[in-house]
Amino acid sequence: MKKDQGVNVNKKKISDLFGKELKIANLGLESMAVSLETQDIQVQQIDWKPPRQVVPNLMYTDTDISIEDANQEAVNRIMGSKAVLVGMGIAKDVIPGMHDRMILHAGPPVEWERMCGPTRGAVMGALIYEGFTQDEKEAEKLAASGEFEFSPCHHHQTVGPMAGIVSPRMPVFIVENPVWNVRAYATLNEGLGKVLRYGGMGEEVYKRLSWMEEVLYPNLSNALEKIPGGIDLKNLIAQALHMGDECHNRNRAGTSLFMRSIAPSLIRVQKNPEDIAKIFEFINSNDHFFLNLSMPAGKAMLLPAEGVEGCTILTVMARNGTDFGIRIASMPDRWFTAPAGVVDGLYLPGFSEQDANPDIGDSTITETAGFGGFAMAAAPAITQFVGGSPSLAHDITLEMYEITQTEHKDFTIPSLGFRGTPLGIDVRRVMETGILPRINTGIAHRKPGIGMVGAGMLRAPKKCFVDAFNEFNKIYCSKKENE
Amino acid sequence: MKKDQGVNVNKKKISDLFGKELKIANLGLESMAVSLETQDIQVQQIDWKPPRQVVPNLMYTDTDISIEDANQEAVNRIMGSKAVLVGMGIAKDVIPGMHDRMILHAGPPVEWERMCGPTRGAVMGALIYEGFTQDEKEAEKLAASGEFEFSPCHHHQTVGPMAGIVSPRMPVFIVENPVWNVRAYATLNEGLGKVLRYGGMGEEVYKRLSWMEEVLYPNLSNALEKIPGGIDLKNLIAQALHMGDECHNRNRAGTSLFMRSIAPSLIRVQKNPEDIAKIFEFINSNDHFFLNLSMPAGKAMLLPAEGVEGCTILTVMARNGTDFGIRIASMPDRWFTAPAGVVDGLYLPGFSEQDANPDIGDSTITETAGFGGFAMAAAPAITQFVGGSPSLAHDITLEMYEITQTEHKDFTIPSLGFRGTPLGIDVRRVMETGILPRINTGIAHRKPGIGMVGAGMLRAPKKCFVDAFNEFNKIYCSKKENE
Repeated sequence: MKKDQGVNVNKKKISDLFGKELKIANLGLESMAVSLETQDIQVQQIDWKPPRQVVPNLMYTDTDISIEDANQEAVNRIMGSKAVLVGMGIAKDVIPGMHDRMILHAGPPVEWERMCGPTRGAVMGALIYEGFTQDEKEAEKLAASGEFEFSPCHHHQTVGPMAGIVSPRMPVFIVENPVWNVRAYATLNEGLGKVLRYGGMGEEVYKRLSWMEEVLYPNLSNALEKIPGGIDLKNLIAQALHMGDECHNRNRAGTSLFMRSIAPSLIRVQKNPEDIAKIFEFINSNDHFFLNLSMPAGKAMLLPAEGVEGCTILTVMARNGTDFGIRIASMPDRWFTAPAGVVDGLYLPGFSEQDANPDIGDSTITETAGFGGFAMAAAPAITQFVGGSPSLAHDITLEMYEITQTEHKDFTIPSLGFRGTPLGIDVRRVMETGILPRINTGIAHRKPGIGMVGAGMLRAPKKCFVDAFNEFNKIYCSKKENE
Repeated sequence: MKKDQGVNVNKKKISDLFGKELKIANLGLESMAVSLETQDIQVQQIDWKPPRQVVPNLMYTDTDISIEDANQEAVNRIMGSKAVLVGMGIAKDVIPGMHDRMILHAGPPVEWERMCGPTRGAVMGALIYEGFTQDEKEAEKLAASGEFEFSPCHHHQTVGPMAGIVSPRMPVFIVENPVWNVRAYATLNEGLGKVLRYGGMGEEVYKRLSWMEEVLYPNLSNALEKIPGGIDLKNLIAQALHMGDECHNRNRAGTSLFMRSIAPSLIRVQKNPEDIAKIFEFINSNDHFFLNLSMPAGKAMLLPAEGVEGCTILTVMARNGTDFGIRIASMPDRWFTAPAGVVDGLYLPGFSEQDANPDIGDSTITETAGFGGFAMAAAPAITQFVGGSPSLAHDITLEMYEITQTEHKDFTIPSLGFRGTPLGIDVRRVMETGILPRINTGIAHRKPGIGMVGAGMLRAPKKCFVDAFNEFNKIYCSKKENE
């Protein structure tokens, strides 16, 4: 999956393309000019920004709430939050509203008929794993039968990467935000390749899930019970951002720090040493293990912003592989959706764009919470996984400051002089600037049963933001003179 | 120890200083201008480099060896090397030339009379730990008695951080370079604060050393025996450089990756689970643990360059707290020394420059091997520990390319577009450019018995390079017309 990177490679490509010395005039974003200059290309920098969109300048709601103040309140709540891994449990026992015949999925609501391939695959796989059937065709019929209720993870304080399927029997992490006394939930990460969350089906998938339920879960859970106060995930994210992670698609540091945090307790609660050794091997073989902790941490810190009146900050971005959906703080129960986008990515050997499902998963909670793709400047090495170049990773973070309310006080980026990460996507700023949020993501095969095929980057679709902005304007600002 | 960092802080300081808008002309290093521009200060960049020193331009030796070719051979040997942790042993059993009455120390040779405070403290502490006496005054007498032979670590394929004391009973790591069939050795890292290698003495120091000998060593050693092929330290260093370490004074990632590598085996060989839990707690509490692995890895990879005829590349930079010494590949047994420098640093609460011993330790093997201070651009967060700013860390790496033979093929820096680290300090280039190698380092209290007081940065002293260059010129190039 590794691509040749760096300045020299680009330089070759550009000169190959034009076959002569280039002189370039660069409009706007200055870091683009700097990138070119490092390739010995002459650049004339011209100060220019895209013309602002002609959209109403929303300042106050009809009830005289200052939108700026409301937005600041929201990001203050997010930044002032904590996220602590306090324990684990079984989905049907601990997730609010979960029941024996419920299957949670990533993204906004979607019925079986409109579900994409990997989500269908993951649902079918989950039904087999749950023991409702042992046959894929039978599982497909069952899924379509109406016997099971499908519900978005986000309706249950839960987040799921990729297909995001949570079935009743699955063990989940419980992440608490003690400042606001709220909790968020996520399953355990299975690794990459042919895994359920990418729509993978088959014996190896169910066997791994069973081992996670029978060995990984009870041991981790027992270990956590012996750690007074739990494990401070916000602190681990802050550290990981200083160690080359952005905590969405690069979690090598976070995974390492989690292992360091839980190791002594895990050893003390052991019943079978070989189980503990296998647990360390499993986590060590999967640098994405921490993703399923950074995601509920993001969710737990965003929850307190839900319901802030007059606020235009996003509390959710999520995709089900068919639709991309956003929710804003002042309308926490509304989804604004658009078709899920196509990912520009690097592919595993034997796969190409033809195999790719559109954008999928709840993992964009990380960007919403001020890390993930928004903190890519902290994680230049991620470009070996998702494509692009370190200078692009740097530019992406700089660009996201244009559409966010503030800079995070606790999540900082050393290479930007310890500047805080861009936090609080403001629908108004997205509309004004025309800059859409950047996301990095894994790519699932579009057919059920296959699994991961690559990883890449894209932007959130514009329509969600247009709809959310117009709806907010209509409901809260229609009586006010906002020009 | 954390200092306020970043652009905004600097900006304030500069405007405070001048009280008006600044217009600056920047001579030379362009990244300085970029740093100022990010502070909204007008800068006119002027291309300029310091005038080259008037030194003989050494191209060929009297026996017609191309010095450039010899230097390339040396760096090829270094880059082509591997470094594998293959096992552990007790110093007197495994270190070549070590015996029951020998004490190894960091840096070039130094007799008791000229030893600095922390080295004296560490020698005295080691004599107490070894059981020769239980009294500090008695230990001092013993050390001065001539009964013990003092010898530089580097004379025994060994490297020791700070005072670098290795006494006969101490357990050591054995790091093999299988490409050249050579081995290097280092003790285990004790942590920061009041520890032997910083000259610390007292019960807590000896108790910790005893626990390391009786619990940490046998368990790690048993675990290593069960890992086929050992642990690939070169690979861990390469990964850590992508995770915000430079593997000299920042080793949080390296320490994490080492824990991940050894954990399963450590659990499988356990005799007492509580011992294993304590080992994980010990390593988890000490982010410098990996330093004592990155150092012998550097040494093991540099050893094959020793003895390359006509070569002006450094194979050793090391300090004993009194003298700074270097050795070059073509004269591997000669030391060129100068007084050890004063460190510009950040101090622990209650300490200041007044307390600081001059520069000390063998840990500059990391810079010599193409990481450490030379890779600071990979580790911007280290500036919270050693001072400076992320942009300075970036500039330091760029500057070191001016005095090195090549860019490392296996150690790369993501934020520089995956450029290889500066490798192979060439005495000729140091003389031509007048640029002295940059080092980052811990700071020991200048009195015996106290321990660590801070961390900081400095440059190697010029005299070592002048002497090495002149000696090389005299011995190998005196008959040749080198202008």
